[in-house]
Amino acid sequence: MPSKLKKVCIIGSGNWGSAIAKIIGKNVQKLPQFDNEVTMYVYEEIMNGEKLTEIINETHENVKYLPGHILPENVVAVPDVVDAAKDADFLIFVVPHQFIRTLCSTLLGKIKPTAVGLSLIKGFDQAAGGGIELISHIISRHLRIACHVLMGANLAGEVANENFCETTIGCRNFRLAQTLKDLIETDYFRVVVVNDEEAVEVCGALKNIVACGAGFVDGLGLGDNTKAAVIRLGLMEMIKFVEIFYPGCKLSTFFESCGVGDLVTTCYGGRNRRVSEAFVKTGKSIKQLEDELLNGQKLQGPFTAEEVNFMSKTKNMQDKFPLFTAIHNICAGKLPAAELINCIRNHPEHMVKVEPDESFSAESEPAE
Amino acid sequence: MPSKLKKVCIIGSGNWGSAIAKIIGKNVQKLPQFDNEVTMYVYEEIMNGEKLTEIINETHENVKYLPGHILPENVVAVPDVVDAAKDADFLIFVVPHQFIRTLCSTLLGKIKPTAVGLSLIKGFDQAAGGGIELISHIISRHLRIACHVLMGANLAGEVANENFCETTIGCRNFRLAQTLKDLIETDYFRVVVVNDEEAVEVCGALKNIVACGAGFVDGLGLGDNTKAAVIRLGLMEMIKFVEIFYPGCKLSTFFESCGVGDLVTTCYGGRNRRVSEAFVKTGKSIKQLEDELLNGQKLQGPFTAEEVNFMSKTKNMQDKFPLFTAIHNICAGKLPAAELINCIRNHPEHMVKVEPDESFSAESEPAE
Repeated sequence: MPSKLKKVCIIGSGNWGSAIAKIIGKNVQKLPQFDNEVTMYVYEEIMNGEKLTEIINETHENVKYLPGHILPENVVAVPDVVDAAKDADFLIFVVPHQFIRTLCSTLLGKIKPTAVGLSLIKGFDQAAGGGIELISHIISRHLRIACHVLMGANLAGEVANENFCETTIGCRNFRLAQTLKDLIETDYFRVVVVNDEEAVEVCGALKNIVACGAGFVDGLGLGDNTKAAVIRLGLMEMIKFVEIFYPGCKLSTFFESCGVGDLVTTCYGGRNRRVSEAFVKTGKSIKQLEDELLNGQKLQGPFTAEEVNFMSKTKNMQDKFPLFTAIHNICAGKLPAAELINCIRNHPEHMVKVEPDESFSAESEPAE
Repeated sequence: MPSKLKKVCIIGSGNWGSAIAKIIGKNVQKLPQFDNEVTMYVYEEIMNGEKLTEIINETHENVKYLPGHILPENVVAVPDVVDAAKDADFLIFVVPHQFIRTLCSTLLGKIKPTAVGLSLIKGFDQAAGGGIELISHIISRHLRIACHVLMGANLAGEVANENFCETTIGCRNFRLAQTLKDLIETDYFRVVVVNDEEAVEVCGALKNIVACGAGFVDGLGLGDNTKAAVIRLGLMEMIKFVEIFYPGCKLSTFFESCGVGDLVTTCYGGRNRRVSEAFVKTGKSIKQLEDELLNGQKLQGPFTAEEVNFMSKTKNMQDKFPLFTAIHNICAGKLPAAELINCIRNHPEHMVKVEPDESFSAESEPAE
């Protein structure tokens, strides 16, 4: 007779996957409705002649991706993703986004049809015809399961160190929302659940565009006021983008950790900001800097800017996104970085947002 | 026969007053409805044996407070505030907030009854019974004129350098809104006008409390995630404070330069952050650090935190402001800074914000 207890599988074991495994492994021990064992899919590698899964299951340390942190003993590393996932009721996706389609093909038909996904994967994939496709949508469509999201200002190392932070879960299923919160929350990792799933996920991608703009401002030495303006206009374009392409979300969602929290951190720290600053200061191309500073890894911001630009062009709405458009053109080498500010001087945001009403006549004002 | 052209007077000539005089002086030359002469009240001082007003009127440079920047010749320095203000239709207030009450007594009955005020003064005054009183309310009440506000991420030196930035005007008078925008806006100083006058002004005061929290996090070395969380929770408490004490404002106002723009800049740069970091690292009192680092000038954050704490106590609502309360207690020496995080672990913001509705039943979820 099958267990009624719910099983969790973590698909991925990088630093973020391992940090979340530490949290979930401890939490299921306290939650009576959950099975005590948490499987963690680990892409098998050999470390000093030993298998990584065996090291993790013996020492409870992911010596390759999160050294120095002990995982709870109930987290079991499994080298086969189907084995890891097949009995799970909750699938926590936390692999690099470029692997998600292959992963879904591998899992299709091998998981419980009632399973629920939670994607911790930032970034997105290119849609077939161009533009962005959300990772949660890919998972949902390929595996035919609901897939919710978790995003926030959550540098993995700091979460593993148990430094206080917040995160946002996007889940419009009311009954599941509390369960996901219980599964993820600790006294140092605080969870807010909102129902705007798409907005939560899109923020995590678009912030990287804004971070490029912040990096250009830093590289150009334009100062604190200008940087604040670029970050703020970036936030306004993020909101506008979600309004147009994922309508129906609440403004308050952008005040969550996935929104303003993650944006601010990314625009003051983060690799997109850093490489963009170097782009201005060195005159090298983004590609060259990716090779030199990121071992050839692709920077998320410029790629996102390109896809977002494709989408706004398709709708003939580039004029609503002057900052995103300028950042794309700069990254693509079509516009000098020094022109950034000229592109946003007449931003549609700079308007009078006061409606005429009856109250004004009561106020004193200069005679006309 | 009196001129129909509207006259502007700038009351104050520090670095911010002088930077705004440069903008307004140029703008009135292009605006047909305005008189060409802009008076600027300058508190008279002697510089190398010469009067500051005479230096300004001869060289068009405020050599004391904004050296290196030439003011338009139509800005006229006037040492007597009544002389400067008596014919003005627009009074731009930009003096240190502690002088505002005296200034109002001096001006009472000596200005045009139809004059309109615009306050650029950040901070607030202590109300008679305790708590905060907005500077624009003081001006409005004492001088019996409408007083609007201008706030944003606007470091005066950068504005004077004509670096691009944004500002927010709070003005609920629809007819005046466009006039104020025309008077203030340039291609580098971009204006959004919103009608939430109180929210705009309150943001400029409350951000300093949050900046103290950000400084404590820096001093404690808690990292980027924690800092993002403290800034975000600070923003949420700012919104809650306005909701309770100045009800009726729009959430969108907090996305303006006066809100998130100014907050972010203040939490990454700014003296409140810097002194609060030193507070943790040196163990000295705020008073001692004010003497050592600010020549005895009072830091705005701790003072604001105290008054805000008084107000939330009065309404028995301290539990809605755990961050503000903790910052006040830390500044007052009643709580060790290391306890900051323990005070916000169970913040009321950390909740499920999903409403039950019919849609959930359509989604797949684990069988229960």
